[in-house]
Amino acid sequence: MTDDIAEQPAVYAGLLETGVDAIAKVARQVADRRPRHVVFTARGTSDHAALYAAYLTEIRLGVPAGLASPSAITVYGARPDLRDTLVVGVSQSGGSHDLCEVVRVAREQGAHTLAVTNNPGSPLAEVAELHVDVTAGHERAVAATKTYTAELLALLLIVESVRGGGRLPDDERRALAELPGHAEAVLADPTAGQLAARYRFADRLVTTGRGYAYPTARETALKLMETSYVAALAFSGADLLHGPLAMTQPDVPVIAVVGGGPAGASMRDVVKRLGERKADLVTVGPEGTIRTPAVDERYAPLLDILPMQRLALSLALHRGEDPDTPRSLKKVTTTL
Amino acid sequence: MTDDIAEQPAVYAGLLETGVDAIAKVARQVADRRPRHVVFTARGTSDHAALYAAYLTEIRLGVPAGLASPSAITVYGARPDLRDTLVVGVSQSGGSHDLCEVVRVAREQGAHTLAVTNNPGSPLAEVAELHVDVTAGHERAVAATKTYTAELLALLLIVESVRGGGRLPDDERRALAELPGHAEAVLADPTAGQLAARYRFADRLVTTGRGYAYPTARETALKLMETSYVAALAFSGADLLHGPLAMTQPDVPVIAVVGGGPAGASMRDVVKRLGERKADLVTVGPEGTIRTPAVDERYAPLLDILPMQRLALSLALHRGEDPDTPRSLKKVTTTL
Repeated sequence: MTDDIAEQPAVYAGLLETGVDAIAKVARQVADRRPRHVVFTARGTSDHAALYAAYLTEIRLGVPAGLASPSAITVYGARPDLRDTLVVGVSQSGGSHDLCEVVRVAREQGAHTLAVTNNPGSPLAEVAELHVDVTAGHERAVAATKTYTAELLALLLIVESVRGGGRLPDDERRALAELPGHAEAVLADPTAGQLAARYRFADRLVTTGRGYAYPTARETALKLMETSYVAALAFSGADLLHGPLAMTQPDVPVIAVVGGGPAGASMRDVVKRLGERKADLVTVGPEGTIRTPAVDERYAPLLDILPMQRLALSLALHRGEDPDTPRSLKKVTTTL
Repeated sequence: MTDDIAEQPAVYAGLLETGVDAIAKVARQVADRRPRHVVFTARGTSDHAALYAAYLTEIRLGVPAGLASPSAITVYGARPDLRDTLVVGVSQSGGSHDLCEVVRVAREQGAHTLAVTNNPGSPLAEVAELHVDVTAGHERAVAATKTYTAELLALLLIVESVRGGGRLPDDERRALAELPGHAEAVLADPTAGQLAARYRFADRLVTTGRGYAYPTARETALKLMETSYVAALAFSGADLLHGPLAMTQPDVPVIAVVGGGPAGASMRDVVKRLGERKADLVTVGPEGTIRTPAVDERYAPLLDILPMQRLALSLALHRGEDPDTPRSLKKVTTTL
């Protein structure tokens, strides 16, 4: 897991150097089809990448987007009319049966389909009309890290290339060129790893964020659960105020992702309310306890998750757990 | 909260007696507009009712449906093209600023809009083109119970009446006529309340369910968090196997909603895996630890949540908390 985490700047650089043209080609085909609506389908960590992509699709493309509940199709046999819809399956292994089934049925129901995976020979890549390879290389640990961030970058490149009509716009290309360097700098900062000692005896933890930062909050919670078995609850900043806030108290640590843009600004009230409840608060962002670069909030998810992965890894080690092989998990999860 | 919970059979009977015609009229207008896609927007408890409605929409109407992330519109200013889309705001108070803003923008962007609230004079009801009153009456406790189940029933009646072309089909009407009696019987069973003593010292808890039962798992977790401050984590049965399963262990209680239909059948593997991990398991359903009537899984969410509300209430009392006024919560939550 240490090696997988450390490789992320190189995975970014690789995808930006060698993946952009292939992705632009797929993006042109998507743009030509002019989908009226985009549905993402994914599980676990990839579901958080899909959530990020749904925000991008709505905000950057002005196309309504959402996440599918696979069971409507796979368990109840729903056959929705999906003409003019793009269905995107996101999965590192590309091996989940239920996602393949959703994409297969979607295609029958008239949808355009796209698979985003780390395995071009996988069943999901086979069943979808279009495929994007996130080229993260073999991931050794069960807990996904570099495949998650590679999915984020691939999905960002797809959306921005669709926006550019099948070509990544130059300003976007320039901004993204800084990403590998930023990622190196974030990983060189030891703060997150050091925080682990403090959470050694925490049995629960709350993570929160809004907008583009909400997937980061959710992925942080999942990583902590997978490797350290802490009960980590993720809430959008808005939902936190609708009930779960009652659960925060001085002995429940809160990690809030507070960006430098509009969602970060809207998190200020949440942070204030947490302060009133004397929550033990750590913030991640340009002005956070854990500092990350002051980039557009759209790019922040590709950087803010890095110290959180490091935190999950360190916490597991502090607790005497083996983060590489969490108990009772497999790399490819089979769900029918 | 005790009184709110006890009123639910009467709320069901009232809505079935006096609400069906008004809802059929709204359903006819929805059916005439032939939406290609339905987007639900809601927060907290109402978000779980919206999730139930999204399953219904896909499975019963064959129309793709999903939940919106309000912040795409309210924080980032997204202006998606929503022609041929029905946007449904669900909120007991109808007072959340961000939902009103989503519905207002959706209308400008060409969507048909529908508000489902317990307050016909509310801003959300005003801003939407169509409105359905769930007629649950005044809810005294901060933690929503009868407004949640009234939303579920109203949404079910809307979907089934759209399916009937603007009229609730007779077989549906007959099946639903049994609902108040079933609800009475479920509430008369003391099992769930008695379980609370067992969870007195649990500091975390996992809930799980699939398909129509997944909203029940999520609402159970939220109710336990709001009233008893337990760290309650909800997962779809499928997602539980993708990581969080590692977190379950003998001292983490699990509540699984296992229906009598296809989603219940697909939960069997989840229950087996939980057994292998020696999880402390309680099941809710026709063959569960907590018995609920053997109805179509589509109706089960209107019954299975009742003992879970009772459990949340009893657990709060066992812990010396006041379930009527959870700390730091307000009835109407304002999010911008």
